[in-house]
Amino acid sequence: MRTEAEQHPIGVFDSGVGGLTVLKALRKELPARDYLYVGDTARVPYGRKPREMVEQFAWEITQFLMDKGAEAVVIACNTASAASLPRLADEMPIPIWGVVEPGVNAACKLTRTGHVGVIGTRGTIDSGAYQDRLRARGLRVWAQACPLFVHLVEEGLAESEEAELLAHHYLDARPPIDTLILGCTHYPLLENVIRRVVGPETAIVSSAEAVATMVRETLGAAPIAPGHQPGKVTHFVTGDAASYRHTAHQIGGVEGEIVKVDSLAPAVA
Amino acid sequence: MRTEAEQHPIGVFDSGVGGLTVLKALRKELPARDYLYVGDTARVPYGRKPREMVEQFAWEITQFLMDKGAEAVVIACNTASAASLPRLADEMPIPIWGVVEPGVNAACKLTRTGHVGVIGTRGTIDSGAYQDRLRARGLRVWAQACPLFVHLVEEGLAESEEAELLAHHYLDARPPIDTLILGCTHYPLLENVIRRVVGPETAIVSSAEAVATMVRETLGAAPIAPGHQPGKVTHFVTGDAASYRHTAHQIGGVEGEIVKVDSLAPAVA
Repeated sequence: MRTEAEQHPIGVFDSGVGGLTVLKALRKELPARDYLYVGDTARVPYGRKPREMVEQFAWEITQFLMDKGAEAVVIACNTASAASLPRLADEMPIPIWGVVEPGVNAACKLTRTGHVGVIGTRGTIDSGAYQDRLRARGLRVWAQACPLFVHLVEEGLAESEEAELLAHHYLDARPPIDTLILGCTHYPLLENVIRRVVGPETAIVSSAEAVATMVRETLGAAPIAPGHQPGKVTHFVTGDAASYRHTAHQIGGVEGEIVKVDSLAPAVA
Repeated sequence: MRTEAEQHPIGVFDSGVGGLTVLKALRKELPARDYLYVGDTARVPYGRKPREMVEQFAWEITQFLMDKGAEAVVIACNTASAASLPRLADEMPIPIWGVVEPGVNAACKLTRTGHVGVIGTRGTIDSGAYQDRLRARGLRVWAQACPLFVHLVEEGLAESEEAELLAHHYLDARPPIDTLILGCTHYPLLENVIRRVVGPETAIVSSAEAVATMVRETLGAAPIAPGHQPGKVTHFVTGDAASYRHTAHQIGGVEGEIVKVDSLAPAVA
């Protein structure tokens, strides 16, 4: 049986389909919950847009999710987390999590040598969000932007010669880190090829799993009671719904209704 | 002074910003004309979508451009040209050009050995549109999909180590062709790196220039009369206008008004 507190949906958003890896991790940890997912596919990708622009997008989408009844919001996008937190969390009346902080916490627990790496989009890496937080915890940090990794995944090339080539290109020059943070929600889909390049001795941190654990620890989660169904997911997309479904196939597909929204801005009375 | 016939705009469309290379070539050949450009950025990319889906998009956009007064339409997208022509041209009451046929014609004129190559998105190459037409003209054909080339351009990596790596990956195994068709509107932006890989002895055909020449030869073009301005361009985008402007910077930028359209389907009375 669901508790009262569990009847409010959790909002999750990303610039596109990448955040579906976070949604999947959340549903594993909090299966009884309903979810509202926003894929801002009309404005994807965020990774190379100016920080102020991305901050504004995050603001609008959080407002949209609150208007739809979300009691908490997970920013399932590293670029948007880096650009808008902690300011957004300070100013909004509901709990808001990003993927950066949980990834940093997980890396701190795993590293033994204190030398960690982080990879992400250019926007995430240039923001310094991971590096600043990791250094504040006393760690040495190596950071590398991998702008083509997202496209490998979305082109269905996660297991390809191109993926091998590019993984070597981006990772071969790394110093002797013992922990690598996947600072982009698409990257868990590239874990096989990244693992082959960094070897079995390097710990790999997925922000998707790290944030899901943190949300469960905060909100609490009941298992699904016998005879009850898992929670529902509704997807709101700003671009084309059929295109979204198609691209999402590369990430494992979409469950639930897809609703096209023309604008995320609040309706004017 | 413009002639009567020149007062109707020419419609141009692409899945995104790639067709701006075609628009640029058209404005060079027919500078006095007004242009209506549709960037279907809510549904970009077309390259890996099913043929029937892309054919439907091309149909809708052509209808949209006709409703806005276009007297002719250039499909500035290889995937859409391959999927929808010649059928669309047969069924519409105005002239419609794609980029495939002009590219094929140009290659036929340039090749001396009769052995040509074509590179494009997976959708374009898998459609066989170039290969079939080139073989029908008696040529031997080598075809290669380069799914990451578009992303190199849009990520601002046209001149980068990644571009070198991938150009070698896609092109090093080519047979001894003497002519290479750039079968994607983004690829002219990669001409430097492609040139370095294929060497000075290989002729490179840009479909953008080839179609612009064909349109001028058909519609005729007057130079701009003294005291008159070049024609206006209006951009209609299905995704976000600011994002479009931002991505278009990688292609040389946008001139003219950008109008966000929520739907390309005809308004229901």
